[in-house]
Amino acid sequence: MHSKPDRSIEAGRRERLRIRSRDFSGPTAGLAPGNVQSNLVILPQALAHDFLRFAQANSKPCPVLAVSEPGDPRLPMLGEDLDIRTDLPRYRVWRRGELVEEPPDISHVWRDDLVSFALGCSFSFEHALLEDGIELRHMTCGSNVPMYRTNIPCRPAGPFAGPLVVSMRPLKPGDAIRAIQITSRFPSVHGAPVHIGLPAAIGIADLARPDYGDAVPIGADELPVFWACGVTPQAVIAQVRPEFCITHAPGSMLITDLVNSKLASL
Amino acid sequence: MHSKPDRSIEAGRRERLRIRSRDFSGPTAGLAPGNVQSNLVILPQALAHDFLRFAQANSKPCPVLAVSEPGDPRLPMLGEDLDIRTDLPRYRVWRRGELVEEPPDISHVWRDDLVSFALGCSFSFEHALLEDGIELRHMTCGSNVPMYRTNIPCRPAGPFAGPLVVSMRPLKPGDAIRAIQITSRFPSVHGAPVHIGLPAAIGIADLARPDYGDAVPIGADELPVFWACGVTPQAVIAQVRPEFCITHAPGSMLITDLVNSKLASL
Repeated sequence: MHSKPDRSIEAGRRERLRIRSRDFSGPTAGLAPGNVQSNLVILPQALAHDFLRFAQANSKPCPVLAVSEPGDPRLPMLGEDLDIRTDLPRYRVWRRGELVEEPPDISHVWRDDLVSFALGCSFSFEHALLEDGIELRHMTCGSNVPMYRTNIPCRPAGPFAGPLVVSMRPLKPGDAIRAIQITSRFPSVHGAPVHIGLPAAIGIADLARPDYGDAVPIGADELPVFWACGVTPQAVIAQVRPEFCITHAPGSMLITDLVNSKLASL
Repeated sequence: MHSKPDRSIEAGRRERLRIRSRDFSGPTAGLAPGNVQSNLVILPQALAHDFLRFAQANSKPCPVLAVSEPGDPRLPMLGEDLDIRTDLPRYRVWRRGELVEEPPDISHVWRDDLVSFALGCSFSFEHALLEDGIELRHMTCGSNVPMYRTNIPCRPAGPFAGPLVVSMRPLKPGDAIRAIQITSRFPSVHGAPVHIGLPAAIGIADLARPDYGDAVPIGADELPVFWACGVTPQAVIAQVRPEFCITHAPGSMLITDLVNSKLASL
């Protein structure tokens, strides 16, 4: 019915319902492009406080958009009708750090002690960059954004500790300055870059070999620009190996009712 | 009486009166550090409209803070009592592009057709950077900021045309990102940088050989960051060789009643 992406405020809820009814099972990039999509981490209550402390202390890679009541599958701040058990196209279920299942619904593994964390995602600031006319190389290439482990440690909290992971977008210097201005307005979705121009200074030896995602070409007239990345908490959780954990599957994000522009601080 | 710099709002007027009475004749850097200092260009009315069009079209290098009535030596927007003929420590008088005099007072060459332009100066944003704890290399070195002619043409207006001149400050990547955020708040004093990291891309062959000011050392862990510079209009005027022109002498700025923080757009 819609040949163009649906940019109305209701688009988020509509796409979420389509996913809930199993009408859609693909990656969520490009769906309801004006709406905030989020990373998902679900942990037992026994670990929830330490994880929230970790996110609070490392808000650039782990910007918290919403936290559920224990055992409650709703996140009404992000959507009145939202049910975290059914509203993502695909999940990953982890036991002691091992991936055991990638189901399209987690009702069968739901527990009364689970706490859901919705964490901001770079889709929101990428939307703002694209609207400003800035080219994003991984999109031009049709690949995943390249991501790298850095030598910058996160501030630990309880068992949660590990290095900051960054995503990289090559930009011409003028676009890099503009991208810093634009993303500074979005502190709840990673905010301004954490580094620019000198990858070795943050422990990245070879831009052609990302730790996650795909390498992208960088022009001689471009600088690599690095943002704190939502893969950071996933890498940290993989290291902690909690007895039970659920996350979104890569690219299968939670689509919320929030509008991207509402996240802008200015 | 004051051993520390005077940061009160009245400091600007007090220092200006001290200069007017010839109690002070040195460079103005560091005087009334909370107050806006400005570049000065005085042109005959016949050229004033074209110069103002040039400044409007090139507002990053030529941010206009105030323009006088023709023949009127006052600029009440910048200070009720301000007299442009006496309130700078030193001036430069130009005839057909030749420097003919460097007097401490221009009353003897004043004409009824002269129009004064006060143009924003990097002192204001440097003040904001220093307050944020960012080191400015040329200050550490006790030298002038290095400035370079670029291959970026200004937009011409009437006879006024020429290349953009930039100032350069070497910064660690994190400080560079922060400096972009801070200076973006000050559009009326050059605003955000125009370039970062790749000097050859804007026609700068050798950072060690600035066209104006002094070279400064750049660390291997630093990027050169380039701001549009108030020397641009001076270089353009030198090229136009107007029959008559007065400017401030380098480092001898107009101290205004405006407070730096009031220039911040956010």
